[in-house]
Amino acid sequence: MEYMPVTESMFLIAETREQPMHVGGLQLFVPREGQTGTELAEEMIDRFTRCTEIDTLFCKRPASPASMLGVFAWSHDDEIDVDYHVRHAVLPRPGRIRELFRYVSLHHSALLDRNRPMWELHIIEGLDDGRVALYSKLHHSLIDGVSALRLLQRTLNADPDDRSGTAPWDPALTRHRRRRDPAHAPSPSSPISGILGFAGTAVGIGTQLVGIGPAAARIAWTAMTNSDFAAPFRPAPRTILDVPIGSARRFAAQQWSTERVRAVASAMGITINDVIVAMCSSALRSYLIDRDALPAAPLLAAVPVSMHDEGDSDGNAITAILTNLATDQPDPERRLHTLVNSMRESKRVIRNLSPLQALAYGAATIVSLALAPVPGFVRYTPPQFNLMISNVPGPSEHMYWNGARLDGVYPVSVVMEGMALNITVTTTAEHVNFGLIGARKELPSLQRLLTHLDTALDELEKVADLPG
Amino acid sequence: MEYMPVTESMFLIAETREQPMHVGGLQLFVPREGQTGTELAEEMIDRFTRCTEIDTLFCKRPASPASMLGVFAWSHDDEIDVDYHVRHAVLPRPGRIRELFRYVSLHHSALLDRNRPMWELHIIEGLDDGRVALYSKLHHSLIDGVSALRLLQRTLNADPDDRSGTAPWDPALTRHRRRRDPAHAPSPSSPISGILGFAGTAVGIGTQLVGIGPAAARIAWTAMTNSDFAAPFRPAPRTILDVPIGSARRFAAQQWSTERVRAVASAMGITINDVIVAMCSSALRSYLIDRDALPAAPLLAAVPVSMHDEGDSDGNAITAILTNLATDQPDPERRLHTLVNSMRESKRVIRNLSPLQALAYGAATIVSLALAPVPGFVRYTPPQFNLMISNVPGPSEHMYWNGARLDGVYPVSVVMEGMALNITVTTTAEHVNFGLIGARKELPSLQRLLTHLDTALDELEKVADLPG
Repeated sequence: MEYMPVTESMFLIAETREQPMHVGGLQLFVPREGQTGTELAEEMIDRFTRCTEIDTLFCKRPASPASMLGVFAWSHDDEIDVDYHVRHAVLPRPGRIRELFRYVSLHHSALLDRNRPMWELHIIEGLDDGRVALYSKLHHSLIDGVSALRLLQRTLNADPDDRSGTAPWDPALTRHRRRRDPAHAPSPSSPISGILGFAGTAVGIGTQLVGIGPAAARIAWTAMTNSDFAAPFRPAPRTILDVPIGSARRFAAQQWSTERVRAVASAMGITINDVIVAMCSSALRSYLIDRDALPAAPLLAAVPVSMHDEGDSDGNAITAILTNLATDQPDPERRLHTLVNSMRESKRVIRNLSPLQALAYGAATIVSLALAPVPGFVRYTPPQFNLMISNVPGPSEHMYWNGARLDGVYPVSVVMEGMALNITVTTTAEHVNFGLIGARKELPSLQRLLTHLDTALDELEKVADLPG
Repeated sequence: MEYMPVTESMFLIAETREQPMHVGGLQLFVPREGQTGTELAEEMIDRFTRCTEIDTLFCKRPASPASMLGVFAWSHDDEIDVDYHVRHAVLPRPGRIRELFRYVSLHHSALLDRNRPMWELHIIEGLDDGRVALYSKLHHSLIDGVSALRLLQRTLNADPDDRSGTAPWDPALTRHRRRRDPAHAPSPSSPISGILGFAGTAVGIGTQLVGIGPAAARIAWTAMTNSDFAAPFRPAPRTILDVPIGSARRFAAQQWSTERVRAVASAMGITINDVIVAMCSSALRSYLIDRDALPAAPLLAAVPVSMHDEGDSDGNAITAILTNLATDQPDPERRLHTLVNSMRESKRVIRNLSPLQALAYGAATIVSLALAPVPGFVRYTPPQFNLMISNVPGPSEHMYWNGARLDGVYPVSVVMEGMALNITVTTTAEHVNFGLIGARKELPSLQRLLTHLDTALDELEKVADLPG
């Protein structure tokens, strides 16, 4: 048995049937020349189930499924029922993306079994275009969403002719990596700690920061009240996003060309991340207007940012900033202006803080997340922010699994009481991939947000004076 | 809001993520002449989703998903998200029964959403023989397993040319029935109370009996200690069935010809139910030997029986008897003899009891079920019986849904801490359908029991001197 740090066990403690705490990813693959979707799916199942040597992470499970006075420990299973963890699914006709999202929505709603290592991989065929989807579901106590996506990407290869495609838990992947790059060798005790050490999702950051405890919160308070930037302490407006939720989820996702997003960013002198947040802002405004639920005050979003310069994306010094989404502003140009200024101002403040202050700033921003599971907290406490919008780097070149090209990679994140929507974006060289996860009953017609995101990009192109 | 009686709310209170409290049924349909499986599945989805007027039972949900000091109430949803409750699934190749059972196993493991009416219907195509499966999942607080199967059978028709196939929640079904059979009209306040009133599954009976409370338990104690038949108070042996369980399930099912079973019964002068229990006894013995886990003392099973005569199956005066399964006996003939005598003796005792004594006898037999969710109970208390074996009457003639013939109907019951296996059998004119549900991790290779059941029937035919 291995003692479980609170930064991991908090996801077991906070988990309820209404609030499952697993993260996921959806990867889409184009079969190689001459291969059908069914053949690719069966090849994947075959390679995965044949890989019976299993990396430590995939063998860990809570030693006791229920907490004893809040203390959990990890134990390791010697035998893994791979046939349970790896699922083969076929979409019903007509096999549109809509049927795929429906599948992911329904399965992302179900709790993982705590009596075995808490992960599942679903290999899904039946898309009318022949692509095959890989939906992964891992408990947040094991891994955060970005690390999960990276973990899955270890199985990919930039060489389309490579045929060594294997399972994400194959220990050979780590050994291989270590051989190629001895400087970044992870410690032998936990072969994938190098990957796990990078905690990049919004909630992942929350974990890290909340973990630093009340002392840091006091420092945060001092830092913030001494500065003239007190944004984390201004409550966000009440919206339909800040409600208790049921267990059912709805997932929706779509990709846009990175070139289009980059063109807007260049023309306006802003970052790609600014454009992404502006798209979300406009889409949320339209969605809330549809539902007759737009608050008078602007929505606030927590946006994870790196504390390094734009180019330097390798570090893990990450914090979250509060962004005024300016959803009260009908004019797209003025909305963009307010939003970009708010993000710049927050980043400027962060950059002027000492690293500890900056970390504490993030903790103060995000602390309400840790309190969300406290009964009644959501109903009686004004939210500090309305949702999280994360942008996560994906692979920057074409990648292949056993010759099948990775064609899209979407995060499937966590929503919780008081935070019924999460938007996580993966950026690759070709595509900006939006993954939306929401509480199904509380946020009807979530897929409308995709249409609104599309309109938002058109709108921003007009603002930037670009051809539509 | 409507106050929820404890006989319903106990299933919400006892439910944990390791112990979901929903019952299910699996029905198999042969498409009508010239119709493919996909066409039948799509026709079913279409008829179901088009039926938007919804019977009360399918609109009920717990008013608050968590209990307030143990008290629950029902509320009724006006709007039902049919698209959520009705699922369309396709089995992966090769589409054997094995893939179907895998689907049912995985979905029977997942909790229902408490924030909406707690039921799901899965229409499953992709079986290689073209049949279509309908897997239903309803919360036990709403309905017991047998009633659920009956409810689903309301949509069936003995006329193969009938094309009025509709959804199980269509209020027209109740109106129609009432017109045809005014003597059995259910009360207007609860249109399907006529069906619900028949609580036939093992756990359903448990509910009824446990509901009568401690006074009855005292009476039971008196009745039993005054009689010379004290079986309910002899503890059953500890077995691998009496353990705490994880949430994952394994479902397996198979049918045998009713004619074969009836021939054994006639030749031996015993009942069909005796043959079914004897098959289970032999199969369990072999399974436990396989796993090197056969206890020295014989297993005890709780077997629900009608207190009426064999022919009179309409009443709801049902109790449960304890049966010595004689699993310690290697000789099939002697095993059968011991088992049949034990059942006869129990029935004789029951028939000599007053109705209240008999009911209380059942309560005493079954009371440990209600205590199973108490932490530590299973680990420290010897079991009163090792499993439940129920035999439930199915339709006695060929039935059709919109011209598609019902070809098999299997109950998918509940297992719980301390009772890791449940066997429920549905008998129709043509087939005896065994439905097995077990805890996946605790009972590996559950499907081996099917092979053993097959061997057991052969064995009984030899004992009865019938041609194999």
